[in-house]
Amino acid sequence: MVKAKKFVLTKHFVGEPKPGDLTLVEFDLPELKDGEILVQAEYLSVDPYMRPYSARFPIGTTMIGGQVAKIIKSKNPKFPVDKRIVGYLGWTTHSVLNPDDPNPDILNMKPYIISGIMDDLPVSFALGMAGMPGNTAYFGLTEICQPKAGETLVVSGAAGAVGSHVGQIGKILGMKVIGIAGSDAKCQWLVNQLKFDHAINYKTEDVSTALKKAAPDGVDCYFDNVGGEISSTVIYQMRLRGRVSICGSISSYNADMTALPKATIVQLGMIFTEIKMEGFMVTRWNDRWMEAIQKNVAWIREGKLISRETVTEGFENMFKAFTGMLKGENFGKAIVKV
Amino acid sequence: MVKAKKFVLTKHFVGEPKPGDLTLVEFDLPELKDGEILVQAEYLSVDPYMRPYSARFPIGTTMIGGQVAKIIKSKNPKFPVDKRIVGYLGWTTHSVLNPDDPNPDILNMKPYIISGIMDDLPVSFALGMAGMPGNTAYFGLTEICQPKAGETLVVSGAAGAVGSHVGQIGKILGMKVIGIAGSDAKCQWLVNQLKFDHAINYKTEDVSTALKKAAPDGVDCYFDNVGGEISSTVIYQMRLRGRVSICGSISSYNADMTALPKATIVQLGMIFTEIKMEGFMVTRWNDRWMEAIQKNVAWIREGKLISRETVTEGFENMFKAFTGMLKGENFGKAIVKV
Repeated sequence: MVKAKKFVLTKHFVGEPKPGDLTLVEFDLPELKDGEILVQAEYLSVDPYMRPYSARFPIGTTMIGGQVAKIIKSKNPKFPVDKRIVGYLGWTTHSVLNPDDPNPDILNMKPYIISGIMDDLPVSFALGMAGMPGNTAYFGLTEICQPKAGETLVVSGAAGAVGSHVGQIGKILGMKVIGIAGSDAKCQWLVNQLKFDHAINYKTEDVSTALKKAAPDGVDCYFDNVGGEISSTVIYQMRLRGRVSICGSISSYNADMTALPKATIVQLGMIFTEIKMEGFMVTRWNDRWMEAIQKNVAWIREGKLISRETVTEGFENMFKAFTGMLKGENFGKAIVKV
Repeated sequence: MVKAKKFVLTKHFVGEPKPGDLTLVEFDLPELKDGEILVQAEYLSVDPYMRPYSARFPIGTTMIGGQVAKIIKSKNPKFPVDKRIVGYLGWTTHSVLNPDDPNPDILNMKPYIISGIMDDLPVSFALGMAGMPGNTAYFGLTEICQPKAGETLVVSGAAGAVGSHVGQIGKILGMKVIGIAGSDAKCQWLVNQLKFDHAINYKTEDVSTALKKAAPDGVDCYFDNVGGEISSTVIYQMRLRGRVSICGSISSYNADMTALPKATIVQLGMIFTEIKMEGFMVTRWNDRWMEAIQKNVAWIREGKLISRETVTEGFENMFKAFTGMLKGENFGKAIVKV
């Protein structure tokens, strides 16, 4: 019998996640019932949303997250052995689940077989550009920002999994794209490899001045991964009827929830310019999930979307990969290879 | 020949408007050309937008604003003597204009004759509930908030011209309405006369605690006249897919534009709840102007909308009425009677 391991939430995060907040435990796998499968994780995802979203679940919950896993036992003919699935099964090496269950995991994301959809691509892409972050980029930009060719798009958290994808879709759609990221190396990658028009290092440059120079006529669309002062700065440089898609607020994820950080008020910058700003969860488009996967996979095949992964080896290093990603150590998608 | 008077912008406002920022001057009226009319102001409006919006116009401009004026000379058969118009002619006792001019005033609001539309109501209502503030309330609530019966609406600046109107439309539409205002007398007026369900005095109560009590299940729609910390507080108590209509940001109108105030970041409170927030100018619905006027006039006639005016006597007291309104001294619509 395989020994399975999982990370269990032993303390809700307060401030920066600390090693003791999660506990790595071994557990025994139950026998399969009819309809169930046993899967073994190959790649696991670490994403910013896990930091705030985990607060919704009780102590004792397996830490939340998605994974690519191989079916190693099956009592479900639709999910045969050796196929791979994407499932939101948490930080666990093995899972027993019935994929036909209407709510098979705690994020209410139905597992699906990736074999046949993207067999020519690395399977880990199913956690990045051809998975949830890719769908977040696709729907969050196209549906919330309603972008048009010739418009100017600003992306914050631009070197992350979602940000780097959003900027590239912006270029595909014929936009002028400006990324905001946290190091010169990231900025160079955005401009040189991903063909962003400009990149601003918010740690060394004055964002307001740099943005005025990069977008002298103002910003039409802002895809926001960070929140806070950077977002206030961008909003005050937007044009009439600009659209803001709030995907994340990573600048405040480690903040004390009873004393959240303050930033320059946004309202005054949104009235006369009639700015529209909307937060979203990608689960809003669950019924159109495969539409975005197919779109992104096609763009990857055409060479229009370049994927970059920051891979951490070893399931036991999940926590390190997670906190490193929260600190911005990753380029593109942060994943863990079991 | 009548001696006309007007207030001219002699200094852009910095901080709180000061008496020397505007200068009262006498001027001679030109002879009428064909198509032109001479009008005499009867009531002038003072509104919050004048504070920030005046910054867009050069020194020497007649201070911006709307008025109800009587036609006292006419060389335009469509605009005969003794009819009354609403026009955005500025803070002036008399104006010569050609109402057929496509851009007859600096706010690009075409003057229109009010006679025949609301002859049974006080003419000053054309500057309030049956005018621009009323249209702001109507479109800003119905179009941006997309309110539904049974939902909970919060209005800030609730005792002002727009806020008191928005809350009453909320009641007409079957919503639970909570107003936020700056005195106990205002709160009592909102609840006792205007039939708001609750009112919160933000100067004496903790808004967060009071709102949790008044809306334990959360807020669906927020009509924002004030911006800043009050708005952050409301946003963090909103329900899934809540809508925020940003009409004004009066809490920051007197702020130093190079060092705007900070407030608790809003982004974190907008993601998982998927809040939509949009700023607007009522001019967006210029082509539907009369639709809202007719709707509001009908509700006034049915007794469903109660108007209250704070009237300052004397054209020379315009500045006093304006700064008093910015400080929240008015109940309902602040107007000046010439």
